[in-house]
Amino acid sequence: MKKMNTNEIEAALKNLTGWELKNDMIERSFTFKDFKEAFSMMTRIAFECEKQQHHPNWENVYNNLTVKLSTHDANGVTQKDIDLAKTIEDIVA
Amino acid sequence: MKKMNTNEIEAALKNLTGWELKNDMIERSFTFKDFKEAFSMMTRIAFECEKQQHHPNWENVYNNLTVKLSTHDANGVTQKDIDLAKTIEDIVA
Repeated sequence: MKKMNTNEIEAALKNLTGWELKNDMIERSFTFKDFKEAFSMMTRIAFECEKQQHHPNWENVYNNLTVKLSTHDANGVTQKDIDLAKTIEDIVA
Repeated sequence: MKKMNTNEIEAALKNLTGWELKNDMIERSFTFKDFKEAFSMMTRIAFECEKQQHHPNWENVYNNLTVKLSTHDANGVTQKDIDLAKTIEDIVA
């Protein structure tokens, strides 16, 4: 899986909502009603991550969730991250 | 719920395993076999957090989980954090 350059990433992010490139990862934060809603959503996302065999760096504090995606083996953002970002926003939408 | 001072926190941590005081929170990291194991454990912890109505600041990257506990309303560590830390280590043990 090939590491994308900044132009390629920025172009891909135009087809997504709310993701931004930060420190060689794509990142988005979500706010839910409460912890139960946040963790329920994380659970749905977790199953998809496992299916795609691609996993996020994510942080949860009560009703807030921040997701950061990059591809460890490529040392940067790849199409796998763009695909997972799309999956995540479809789940949350 | 009263904010504990450093001496009180350090004394309480002696009864726990692997937790340390950092930036006004108590923190511990766990490593599991893989993402599935890590997230399964997070799910078990999440139910207990909801029951105790006390929630962690936690971050997961693949098989690693870092948990940070503090009490927002007290602006520091309280007995609620010590109790939740104990619950978490009992679940993981």
